[in-house]
Amino acid sequence: MTEFFWPVRVYYEDTDSGGVVYYANYLKFMERARTEWLRSLGFEQDELIEQQGVIFAVRKVEADFRKPARFNEALSVSAKIKSRGKASLVFQQDITRDADGQLLCSGEVKVACLDAASFRPVSIPEQIIREITDGV
Amino acid sequence: MTEFFWPVRVYYEDTDSGGVVYYANYLKFMERARTEWLRSLGFEQDELIEQQGVIFAVRKVEADFRKPARFNEALSVSAKIKSRGKASLVFQQDITRDADGQLLCSGEVKVACLDAASFRPVSIPEQIIREITDGV
Amino acid sequence: MTEFFWPVRVYYEDTDSGGVVYYANYLKFMERARTEWLRSLGFEQDELIEQQGVIFAVRKVEADFRKPARFNEALSVSAKIKSRGKASLVFQQDITRDADGQLLCSGEVKVACLDAASFRPVSIPEQIIREITDGV
Amino acid sequence: MTEFFWPVRVYYEDTDSGGVVYYANYLKFMERARTEWLRSLGFEQDELIEQQGVIFAVRKVEADFRKPARFNEALSVSAKIKSRGKASLVFQQDITRDADGQLLCSGEVKVACLDAASFRPVSIPEQIIREITDGV
Repeated sequence: MTEFFWPVRVYYEDTDSGGVVYYANYLKFMERARTEWLRSLGFEQDELIEQQGVIFAVRKVEADFRKPARFNEALSVSAKIKSRGKASLVFQQDITRDADGQLLCSGEVKVACLDAASFRPVSIPEQIIREITDGV
Repeated sequence: MTEFFWPVRVYYEDTDSGGVVYYANYLKFMERARTEWLRSLGFEQDELIEQQGVIFAVRKVEADFRKPARFNEALSVSAKIKSRGKASLVFQQDITRDADGQLLCSGEVKVACLDAASFRPVSIPEQIIREITDGV
Repeated sequence: MTEFFWPVRVYYEDTDSGGVVYYANYLKFMERARTEWLRSLGFEQDELIEQQGVIFAVRKVEADFRKPARFNEALSVSAKIKSRGKASLVFQQDITRDADGQLLCSGEVKVACLDAASFRPVSIPEQIIREITDGV
Repeated sequence: MTEFFWPVRVYYEDTDSGGVVYYANYLKFMERARTEWLRSLGFEQDELIEQQGVIFAVRKVEADFRKPARFNEALSVSAKIKSRGKASLVFQQDITRDADGQLLCSGEVKVACLDAASFRPVSIPEQIIREITDGV
């Protein structure tokens, strides 16, 4: 898999009174990148729920908040699969500032594939595995 | 109905880089007060969904943002029914700062009672009407 | 001024357990459109704060939530100036679903121009007025 | 330090269309508990910024999302200092469901003490250290 990048603009909604992006919101930015990566491979998550009965849920997050992003800055969020299980994926994700390429935040996010009704772990759909493997 | 008050503390999560509460978040504070008012009357919204199949949804909001609330301030949010239809309620809500009683934000929020499955308007459950009317 | 449109994708972060976009989040979508409209005219809000000492703040919102948007839908948010004062702008904004053009939410948002330090109303900078007027 | 607990109620604002609390919001709940713990020791963070020029910022988060919390549930959030540096604190935090005591989420949060103006690390104020040490 080649690394995927998704642009994010910092709006007021993302900041806090410290003058910087509220740290929990970086996790939202990372999720946007994962969602758009899946879409770029041809998978729409609402269709995965309805047609295949699977949903992806975050199980574990490790994130380092190195430098703050500020209001109105343009950021890039990467998404790259670090490892893969039968029913889960681990992503390595970095957030950098476009203006100077500074790394602001990096994280490792474990996403589980769940049955959309029971929330029990299930195998990642074959087509997704195929797309991921082709890309490696 | 007597007026209901619910306390809210301003955390970083509620503020933006202007140094004040992000305006859309006052709507969250108002919803907390409406939820707790319903609970004070004995109605849990998760039970209303499961047992009676009804859900309340905001249909219309008019809000004036007069003065900003700041990080760490203690606020009071009021909830009072202004008018009532067969399938909707209109709330008048004020947010004041505890330290000086200053009115920061006031709003009118129209809430519709919907069928939880179809999202179509349905009559407000009898027991809720009775509680509201008793209180008037 | 010609009407401005900004695309928004609905992510999990925007939804609630009713299965639809949490209503207060439509206000965030509207703000993104206003911000990008200003940027399209050549104005960066962080520069307006630093160089001109002015900040825009929402003073009043009236919003109708007509139909719900759902997870993963692509939306369009419009921004159009409805009226203009010396120190404020009133925007008319609509949110429609791309798939079927359905109007989901419409709002009127009054934005005040404030001194960034004192938060007192000040005149909208001349260059912005000029851009707006040219566009009409 | 004895463990500190803070109650949190799940509102619609906290949930997503998966029907459960949006995972990044557990980090907000943890921050509320840390803030209230500091307050219980007599420290108001707005005063720490104004009077001592220090601000606390999250530097690192590791969180496990074990079981989902649902709309309207009552939760308890713990905060306990796991280790302490000259300019940072590491908290161990658990979120449990009141109804059955089920552990839903656990996290380790590293908080740095920063100069409020320069955002450079500075020593944690003496009085805070004293309070923490007394409590151990």
